[in-house]
Amino acid sequence: MPVLVMKFGGTSVATLDRIRRAAKRVGVEVAKGYDVIVIVSAMSGKTNELVGWVNETSPLYDAREYDAVVSSGENVTAGLMALTLQEMDVPARSWQGWQVPVQTTSAHASARIEAIPSDNIMAKFAEGMKVAVVAGFQGVSPEGRITTLGRGGSDTTAVAFAAAFGAERCDIYTDVDGVYTTDPRVESKARKLDKISFEEMLELASLGAKVLQTRSVELAMRYKVKLRVLSSFEEQSDDAGTLVCDEEEIMESNVVAGVAFSRDEAKMTLVSVEDRPGIAAAIFGTLSDGGVNVDMIVQNIAEEGRTDMTWSCPVDQVKRADAAMQKAASAGVFNYDELIVDEDVAKVSVVGIGMRSHTGVAAKMFKVLSDEGVNIKVITTSEIKISVLIDRKYMELAVQALHDAFELDKAS
Amino acid sequence: MPVLVMKFGGTSVATLDRIRRAAKRVGVEVAKGYDVIVIVSAMSGKTNELVGWVNETSPLYDAREYDAVVSSGENVTAGLMALTLQEMDVPARSWQGWQVPVQTTSAHASARIEAIPSDNIMAKFAEGMKVAVVAGFQGVSPEGRITTLGRGGSDTTAVAFAAAFGAERCDIYTDVDGVYTTDPRVESKARKLDKISFEEMLELASLGAKVLQTRSVELAMRYKVKLRVLSSFEEQSDDAGTLVCDEEEIMESNVVAGVAFSRDEAKMTLVSVEDRPGIAAAIFGTLSDGGVNVDMIVQNIAEEGRTDMTWSCPVDQVKRADAAMQKAASAGVFNYDELIVDEDVAKVSVVGIGMRSHTGVAAKMFKVLSDEGVNIKVITTSEIKISVLIDRKYMELAVQALHDAFELDKAS
Repeated sequence: MPVLVMKFGGTSVATLDRIRRAAKRVGVEVAKGYDVIVIVSAMSGKTNELVGWVNETSPLYDAREYDAVVSSGENVTAGLMALTLQEMDVPARSWQGWQVPVQTTSAHASARIEAIPSDNIMAKFAEGMKVAVVAGFQGVSPEGRITTLGRGGSDTTAVAFAAAFGAERCDIYTDVDGVYTTDPRVESKARKLDKISFEEMLELASLGAKVLQTRSVELAMRYKVKLRVLSSFEEQSDDAGTLVCDEEEIMESNVVAGVAFSRDEAKMTLVSVEDRPGIAAAIFGTLSDGGVNVDMIVQNIAEEGRTDMTWSCPVDQVKRADAAMQKAASAGVFNYDELIVDEDVAKVSVVGIGMRSHTGVAAKMFKVLSDEGVNIKVITTSEIKISVLIDRKYMELAVQALHDAFELDKAS
Repeated sequence: MPVLVMKFGGTSVATLDRIRRAAKRVGVEVAKGYDVIVIVSAMSGKTNELVGWVNETSPLYDAREYDAVVSSGENVTAGLMALTLQEMDVPARSWQGWQVPVQTTSAHASARIEAIPSDNIMAKFAEGMKVAVVAGFQGVSPEGRITTLGRGGSDTTAVAFAAAFGAERCDIYTDVDGVYTTDPRVESKARKLDKISFEEMLELASLGAKVLQTRSVELAMRYKVKLRVLSSFEEQSDDAGTLVCDEEEIMESNVVAGVAFSRDEAKMTLVSVEDRPGIAAAIFGTLSDGGVNVDMIVQNIAEEGRTDMTWSCPVDQVKRADAAMQKAASAGVFNYDELIVDEDVAKVSVVGIGMRSHTGVAAKMFKVLSDEGVNIKVITTSEIKISVLIDRKYMELAVQALHDAFELDKAS
């Protein structure tokens, strides 16, 4: 039998009624002849509650215990989903991560999946079981401890199962009906994409589109897993949602596929640090050790022998970055005049594989922003995306103007 | 290092504050030089919530999935307790049932513990870990599925660990400060016992005293595990609570140790069934198959060749018993004139190992009840207990009168 992986996120299993609705969708696929692997998240809110308890108990928690606690929500949903399917006369059973086993690294709270042996579940399929319900987000370390894959990790679980079982497709059921050209809450003309390439999806996910966990897209790209994002709240046809696939499968597409944004960014500038080999490594090594996720980096020459170093990071990591810099300075690792912090910036990006073959996208983007009077603070580019840091108050304006200018409301 | 087992019930870990208070108690024992195994229940209310979800999802649930769902509450508490201890600089880690592993039978929802290999945890103790926090109530079947031990099963987990690790003692922390001569809510003169024998505790637990799960007392008796019941809400001295131990360790005791009662009983009489060999087996086999827990049994001769069969059972099983009898009659297994049901009875029992050597306890009990005008409907006895079924409205009166008559408010 062909295998299909279906993943249901937290809002799709938030209540017993919603679990029933999800189970009905699973039943439809079973009726089509699939052996189905269902990956479930915790009921929405549950994981946050557990994380809250852990943080309140131990601010600098032992990540192994964190994982033991926060993984429990998925176990509940997996059992309830299996019971619901059984009530519908669909042969099903639940599997917790360690039962499969989903073998991961020992990097607790952000473990990576290393292997998913398929024999246990395949043996049950051979015996007539139609649905394996697997608790998402969790695995087991070589030491036999429970691990978790980081927030949103159930997407990664789903893609990894699809790869391990050679699934025909991996359907991600969520609370939106697909991937949009941008967030419809910011631009009402945002259009749902029927297809998007892995590369574009990866950029969009990294750049702040929350529809899929970045790592799950990486994994899908590497193993050529056809990913479909669709809503669990609507009746579904076979071509519903958005298919994330190889770019070869997309006949025509716009030069720009979407506009992504990330609201809560900060820009930090270290003024007048000595300009010597190794200074960047010293600064960004210090930030990394301090737990700061640096995004964009720009270096300006300030004066002879001195340089200014600018970076962006999530706004809630500013204090941490400041502390790390002060500590490094007092330890004599490097010195600087001052650290300028701008906590009111946002990042806006345009993404599209068409940029590889079309020139002028960057120029057009800068002109659009300039015409709207939006000052660009930092620019970074990759082969298929351009990102700019701007004042946060202009974020919505910039997204709307770019969406318009690149005609994203129109299909190619 | 000597090993101590400490078990904390649901009310003792109901909030993060209470977990902290429990952890402090654990810290006190660690400071005394013990390696401690802590057994935790789910936060109070959590297991009921999970059971409710399962019942709502699937009234005739697959017990394997029931177990997978309802065991999750203990995992949360175990992780939080380990984190709390770590915050207090006590080296600790959590263990879920399958990690130890707590090997059980495959009788899901009421599994029995078969073995608890001590090597994993002992190896950690040898490395310097001071506390192993174990999720109570759960284990793993030979098939690798999660099992649970039945409601109150964490007591059994605790005693089984104490036996497996040769623990010096098993302390059961709960919301009462020990075992009482009777329920203080019914008799204000009820007195906490300093010591009680395994046999007496077993009878009291079976007869309705809710302080310990019956099976845990059986296990403690078999493996000579010293059990102590004490409150997690009071400052504790070394001799706090009640010690459940071998009768040899109790120098002097009252003839009667306690008065137990069970409020929600029903009395059912099958009138005029044929009196032939095998009739009792047919009737009680039918009731057992129908899921009825029969307690007391009395047989009266009604007339030549016919007999009346009377039994008691929990009042919420009356409908089930009635249905089983009607089904058996229409299938021709046996016949009867009518089934008389009295749903307003309660069971009152006096328990004491002193009864073995003292005569007259039964006579005194019957006289006390008679003097109070309480009619006795059914009597059963064992070597160390006498139980009577009476009208429910007299239950409190009977308990108080017996408590007075046997001078249970006075220490021996």
